[in-house]
Amino acid sequence: MQMYLDCIPCFVQQAVRAARHVSDDPDVQKRIVREALSCINAIDFSDPPPRAGQIFYRRLSEITGIPDLYQADKEMQNRLALELLPELKRQIEISPDPLLLATRLAIAGNIIDLGAHGNLAITDIQKAIKQALNEPLFGDWEEFKAAVNAARDILYLADNAGEIVFDRLLIELIIAKPVTLVVRGAPAINDALRADAQSAGLDKLVEIIDNGSDAPGTLIGDCSSEFQSRFAAADLIIAKGQGNYETLSDEPHNIYFLFKVKCQVIAGQIGQPVGTQVLIKSKVISPEIGSDR
Amino acid sequence: MQMYLDCIPCFVQQAVRAARHVSDDPDVQKRIVREALSCINAIDFSDPPPRAGQIFYRRLSEITGIPDLYQADKEMQNRLALELLPELKRQIEISPDPLLLATRLAIAGNIIDLGAHGNLAITDIQKAIKQALNEPLFGDWEEFKAAVNAARDILYLADNAGEIVFDRLLIELIIAKPVTLVVRGAPAINDALRADAQSAGLDKLVEIIDNGSDAPGTLIGDCSSEFQSRFAAADLIIAKGQGNYETLSDEPHNIYFLFKVKCQVIAGQIGQPVGTQVLIKSKVISPEIGSDR
Repeated sequence: MQMYLDCIPCFVQQAVRAARHVSDDPDVQKRIVREALSCINAIDFSDPPPRAGQIFYRRLSEITGIPDLYQADKEMQNRLALELLPELKRQIEISPDPLLLATRLAIAGNIIDLGAHGNLAITDIQKAIKQALNEPLFGDWEEFKAAVNAARDILYLADNAGEIVFDRLLIELIIAKPVTLVVRGAPAINDALRADAQSAGLDKLVEIIDNGSDAPGTLIGDCSSEFQSRFAAADLIIAKGQGNYETLSDEPHNIYFLFKVKCQVIAGQIGQPVGTQVLIKSKVISPEIGSDR
Repeated sequence: MQMYLDCIPCFVQQAVRAARHVSDDPDVQKRIVREALSCINAIDFSDPPPRAGQIFYRRLSEITGIPDLYQADKEMQNRLALELLPELKRQIEISPDPLLLATRLAIAGNIIDLGAHGNLAITDIQKAIKQALNEPLFGDWEEFKAAVNAARDILYLADNAGEIVFDRLLIELIIAKPVTLVVRGAPAINDALRADAQSAGLDKLVEIIDNGSDAPGTLIGDCSSEFQSRFAAADLIIAKGQGNYETLSDEPHNIYFLFKVKCQVIAGQIGQPVGTQVLIKSKVISPEIGSDR
């Protein structure tokens, strides 16, 4: 999807939070916000919103000289999620529909997003888990379940650190099929890298590849040719998070998007309020491709 | 006061609303938002926030070729307020403290602000009036009352159209002293111009001057020399609206600011929530000046 007008002030707001995250010096903060204004003004507004984030956070790393600006946050988020893991596994074990609950929890984990959210409290995560346990998903659950059952192989596009621990709950239930987990190729806000997947213990369960890109989403043309081949050949793609939805919703593939609605723009597109747990199928899949799967 | 970091996304949000106000064409809207990003990036962040608005709305008039972009809104706001006037006058007549109620209502009228607010509904105005009738002011009411009683003359800096009708309620109670009403010198969002003061019938009650500037606030150095002289010589200044507060809060004069808190930045400064009815005295007045008045 392309950038909406409303994405622009939201992006600037995110830049203000990022500026405060990397420095306490008002002059540095102002310089960073000025850079953000330049970044957003320089990009093509027909690009998906994560393009702005990619350019800005790359510039932010240059300015600060820190390649991975949110490393400490990511480690903390992984730790926090790993502490919750045993109890969540127990919930899934006693659930009448383990796949449904694991899917809901994987979506609940998408609350851990430093792009859209500023400060994430443990109470926010607990609230998301409670919602996952109690509220239905919006979207194409039955179709998703059938697609997972029918899939020859699954490409699982991860989103954030911390969240990736929640992804493990779902991945553990679908690894009867070959699952390849995809992480970002380089730091992008708190998005999961290979190290985060390893922290979550996923390297022992599935193949992990990276997409070769530092965008907080999946800008296909910006990804490595290896990833592009895997993406093109994938039988079923599970794409986590709003950034992946924003960058892939126009791609003609068999993609299911799992995320929590983070902003009014997506809320308007989906027709559901902010906070909704969404599981929707790519709407641009052609009938030919669709009938083949 | 200088621009806060948080003013910047808020300003961009305002620009998005302005873009939608002046055009339905997505390309024109995008161009306008790009102009806003350039405007905000070009200004000195130590300037007060209304400087950004001044430069942006001036540019918006150039782009659209429309000198007064909110003329129809202002006329509608004046009409709306004039319809409410008789009932509000009656409320003041039966009030045990007419000056207090008129002051509260003058502040309530400050809800009519197209800068901070997007779409203003009649229900918002009714809510503000109800609040004015029921909730206390935050600030220096007793001091203000004494200052009005002691003043040799009063310079009354208006803010918005529509609001200026509410100002009339207060002005009618203080015209035992010479009152000069100041409007903007040229269109600035929905800020009141001479025509709006005339619509409110204020030309029959007090002298009206304009400040010679198109800023949505009072940037002294940008105002006419006539206004600057009147400002310097004024015994008591009543400044309406957040824009006047943002531009004059550091001026060493005997100023009382009357406004509704419109944003988190000012809420943080004042220590009161958004929506609070504020009447505060300039804190930078020197003891020498203060003791003379």
